[in-house]
Amino acid sequence: MTTLDLTADAVTLTRQLVDLESVSKDEQAIADAVEAALRALPHLTVTRRGHTVVARTDLGRDERVVIAGHLDTVPVNDNLPSRLDEEAGILHGLGTCDMKGGDAVILRLAATVPEPVRDVTFILYEGEEIEAEFNGLRHLAESDPELMAADFAILMEPSNAVVEAGCQGTLRVEVRTTGERAHSARSWRGVNAIHGAAEVLARLNSYEARQPVIDGLEYHEGLNAVFIRGGVAGNVLPDECVVEVNFRFAPDRSEAEAEAFVREFFAGYDVRLTDTAPGALPGLDRPAARAFVEAVGGEVNPKFGWTDVARFTALGIPAVNYGPGDPMFAHKQDEHVPVEHVERCEARLRAWLEGR
Amino acid sequence: MTTLDLTADAVTLTRQLVDLESVSKDEQAIADAVEAALRALPHLTVTRRGHTVVARTDLGRDERVVIAGHLDTVPVNDNLPSRLDEEAGILHGLGTCDMKGGDAVILRLAATVPEPVRDVTFILYEGEEIEAEFNGLRHLAESDPELMAADFAILMEPSNAVVEAGCQGTLRVEVRTTGERAHSARSWRGVNAIHGAAEVLARLNSYEARQPVIDGLEYHEGLNAVFIRGGVAGNVLPDECVVEVNFRFAPDRSEAEAEAFVREFFAGYDVRLTDTAPGALPGLDRPAARAFVEAVGGEVNPKFGWTDVARFTALGIPAVNYGPGDPMFAHKQDEHVPVEHVERCEARLRAWLEGR
Repeated sequence: MTTLDLTADAVTLTRQLVDLESVSKDEQAIADAVEAALRALPHLTVTRRGHTVVARTDLGRDERVVIAGHLDTVPVNDNLPSRLDEEAGILHGLGTCDMKGGDAVILRLAATVPEPVRDVTFILYEGEEIEAEFNGLRHLAESDPELMAADFAILMEPSNAVVEAGCQGTLRVEVRTTGERAHSARSWRGVNAIHGAAEVLARLNSYEARQPVIDGLEYHEGLNAVFIRGGVAGNVLPDECVVEVNFRFAPDRSEAEAEAFVREFFAGYDVRLTDTAPGALPGLDRPAARAFVEAVGGEVNPKFGWTDVARFTALGIPAVNYGPGDPMFAHKQDEHVPVEHVERCEARLRAWLEGR
Repeated sequence: MTTLDLTADAVTLTRQLVDLESVSKDEQAIADAVEAALRALPHLTVTRRGHTVVARTDLGRDERVVIAGHLDTVPVNDNLPSRLDEEAGILHGLGTCDMKGGDAVILRLAATVPEPVRDVTFILYEGEEIEAEFNGLRHLAESDPELMAADFAILMEPSNAVVEAGCQGTLRVEVRTTGERAHSARSWRGVNAIHGAAEVLARLNSYEARQPVIDGLEYHEGLNAVFIRGGVAGNVLPDECVVEVNFRFAPDRSEAEAEAFVREFFAGYDVRLTDTAPGALPGLDRPAARAFVEAVGGEVNPKFGWTDVARFTALGIPAVNYGPGDPMFAHKQDEHVPVEHVERCEARLRAWLEGR
């Protein structure tokens, strides 16, 4: 079994984690290494569920915070092992950005801040990069919700080492038009379902995005066709056309409200919900969140993409994204993380946990 | 080798042809049988090209007519051998309608009208049901155009035993919209190509079909999307959407004119021509055609679908479709032909060739 050296600096530890391949559904080795390293720390109580590892301080502080990161990566794309460009200060490799840089910060804090001023629950979990049914954080919320209980949560998803608060929800529907097949040489005998989709697309063009300000952050909704398909044969009028629409909605709407909006928007059409995930309110009105934002420098942006922070929100826990790396490089062949991001995140979080 | 009995009645002969399986690219056996049967007739001069057989009278008549049919069928679909429902007067099986009923009529006429009042060129050809590059009539027009020379041509495609004159042309274009990819959570950074297709579909909805009257026949054009596709991933704004449009045009337009119409119709869009085939003018103003229509009962309809009659038109030869069977059952599992259609076509053509 690989032994992680939690006394090494966070960048060296990031490299150890990156070089321990952990594509989704293959997280046993990394979870074993993480569990062993954390169990060696007497100030933490460790729980393992599947390949998800939870480590908690229990100092009786007034406040408890969760700091969480996922251990899995997307598939290898000729981008392992890690490679450190010392001159540029960039660490390259799969998972450097999404999100083993953040995981390394978590492990460093777990090992080196034995008496934080707020109790901490560290969560390192499996199955984030694939279908939600495999998500370790989701499983934990179902099996052991008490382990996720906290006043505030930080998810170390890449956010350029700046707080990105909340996240927008996402919902997908299929908008379907139907017609009647006919040979295209006698088209007046049929009804063309693709032509019927003109109005669906026209409505999408008329859509005006809502940009609500929540806790001082301006979100930005979006309603977009992401797929369109229709057609039977080159000489047949098609009897079905399907437009797959993705609605990204600000976190002041519930999933039900978002669905109602989309159904109303496409009134008169066959609308089928295929996928939905709630947004997460930034929760910056909560004292714990406000204090954290101040501690890490005050800058805060809205998170447009969906992340697991929404799982905390669903439990009533305000949560933010805060981690090293530019999310634009996540899932890319040239994934990388600036060394400075890793160091800054660790330093800021350390100061906050130590009450400095 | 199967021996065809040209002294049998046309329905029996149709069954012999149907039971001699001849899916496209597998026409050797049927062409061999047809060639042997025709070579046994001393009043005909027979030429073989590939699996296409041509048999001509050469009586020095003032007029020459072509009577043609293809020997191949679409793939077997659990609809062989033939089955005669005597009570209903229906012959069932692959190729009964498209078009071995017509082929049987051709062979019967070839065998039993040794001294027609107009010289006749009988053509039984391969490769009609697949890509045009395999079409035996097309090959013959290239290799031996003199064998196709005539004042008038009859193609025995199923037409309910009623003359269907000319045929409409067909043309396909891809109309393409482009955009810029972006994550759907930050959709304002991209341009959605599917949304851009709204105007393409709106124009199709505004299309008004031309219905020109040519030689007394009302054609009916049609402009239809037959396929639409676009999409990259469920969370990405697509940068391309393609609408495949089929234009069926009346035979008073050339292919070039039809293409110009479509390009003008979609002005402002990227329009790519993918496929085109010319229409065929009915040619009912020609004496040979007029006489034929009168001989077979006077009823004549326009042909909307594309057929090989267009290959004769391209050679300056007026041509009509006239054959047993309802084209709606061509290519269907339950393909069949009414016995009465086969008998009527044979009787009418016989009377016309015998000058009665």
